[in-house]
Amino acid sequence: MPTTLALTVAYDGRGFAGFARQPGLVTVQGRLETALATVFRQEVETVGAGRTDAGVHALAQVVSCVVESDEVDTGTALRSLNALVGDGIVVTGVRMAAPDFDARRSAVAREYRYRIAPGPVPPMFLAPYSWWVKGTLDLETMRAAGSSLVGEHDFKSFCVAASAEGIRTHRRLYVVEMGPETAMGEQSIVMRVVGNAFLHSMVRAIVGSLVEVGLGRRPAGWMAEALAARDRTAAGPTAPAAGLTLWHVTYPEECWR
Amino acid sequence: MPTTLALTVAYDGRGFAGFARQPGLVTVQGRLETALATVFRQEVETVGAGRTDAGVHALAQVVSCVVESDEVDTGTALRSLNALVGDGIVVTGVRMAAPDFDARRSAVAREYRYRIAPGPVPPMFLAPYSWWVKGTLDLETMRAAGSSLVGEHDFKSFCVAASAEGIRTHRRLYVVEMGPETAMGEQSIVMRVVGNAFLHSMVRAIVGSLVEVGLGRRPAGWMAEALAARDRTAAGPTAPAAGLTLWHVTYPEECWR
Repeated sequence: MPTTLALTVAYDGRGFAGFARQPGLVTVQGRLETALATVFRQEVETVGAGRTDAGVHALAQVVSCVVESDEVDTGTALRSLNALVGDGIVVTGVRMAAPDFDARRSAVAREYRYRIAPGPVPPMFLAPYSWWVKGTLDLETMRAAGSSLVGEHDFKSFCVAASAEGIRTHRRLYVVEMGPETAMGEQSIVMRVVGNAFLHSMVRAIVGSLVEVGLGRRPAGWMAEALAARDRTAAGPTAPAAGLTLWHVTYPEECWR
Repeated sequence: MPTTLALTVAYDGRGFAGFARQPGLVTVQGRLETALATVFRQEVETVGAGRTDAGVHALAQVVSCVVESDEVDTGTALRSLNALVGDGIVVTGVRMAAPDFDARRSAVAREYRYRIAPGPVPPMFLAPYSWWVKGTLDLETMRAAGSSLVGEHDFKSFCVAASAEGIRTHRRLYVVEMGPETAMGEQSIVMRVVGNAFLHSMVRAIVGSLVEVGLGRRPAGWMAEALAARDRTAAGPTAPAAGLTLWHVTYPEECWR
């Protein structure tokens, strides 16, 4: 009897050419599949909840796979995978899932967080996990701009143009919020974006646009105009990958065994 | 007229053979003095508040120096130093100090923080800044053990044996406290130790001993016995450098101009 597993995976995006397997490149999926093949002594194909780009981090990416084993000791699998998966990846959990569980298709919501370190000098400990913005950000104006994105919209303006061709670019955002956060003794602003699904580089395009507003280069109302334009050139630049972390993926309770 | 400056400096200990200048090795002090020499076009000798070991981090190390300049534009100096000092060091502040200010001798208190990530799997984002302890720590017992160190004591049991020879090993601890802290989405236990001054590896020996207690290998009362023994072998092992950060140094108000 095959068993469907759900892995929760944290990784430091710096070491990888993104999540998705690519021939000849070091990827999170490639490393996981190699470790899974060793642990279960079979070829294992995985599906990730989010195809994070090169340099993007994850606190809790979810990865599903099916292994041909009647019984899986999840505690042993967790320890074995961590012993094999190599630097920059930690498998934080292994659980049994319903037979038809698919980390991408079963997900009902994804949360990303983006960390900005504003100020005259760069952050030290937060440097690998944030975008240093030289200057002061007006959080209230950014919040006003961000709120115009909540709901179901065509987010074509916030998608890599080539990726948007021929696909439906409507997505639903449940939450766009931001606030100050001190971590490792350093101050930062963290944006929390929760949605049903995301287009290629969507969060980074949203953050890049919000920072334009926060720095006073654009009024808060420009965000709604950029959204309505359905044209990538109408929105702001793509924020750097380092600041972005896939934070959490939500599944219906019936996914778990 | 010479001018005395106080620099506040953050660094990632991983890249350095410690704070103190050593011929042929990459050190924080060496890098700072090279940058200062370029900015002020003269040899500059520095004094640091704490001589952190290899691998130990700093959020706000304080470094003093005297430069032969009547006028110092601290804003320009800050930008120039950061442009020159290289990876792994950020100068977070430059201020004018009283003529006799000395970062080491003028300090009245130093605060170190030590981060432990307990649990079955290692942390990801906190890995470079914490000690992964496989297991569960009993925080209440550790607090009881730590409280026996507060006050003025001979801390010879918590000092590298060779460094303790021929020096006075009495120090005064004002605060030894610990609590849970979530940073970058990961849980950890942070210990805060504030004292007038510290012996070589003192905080790491204290943490290594507290973890013995927290894991249940020793009773809380063992800490006071280890202290009373005045013998390094009576206390626990030295905790790894990665978890330790020089957090803050306190000076009397009259140090500033």
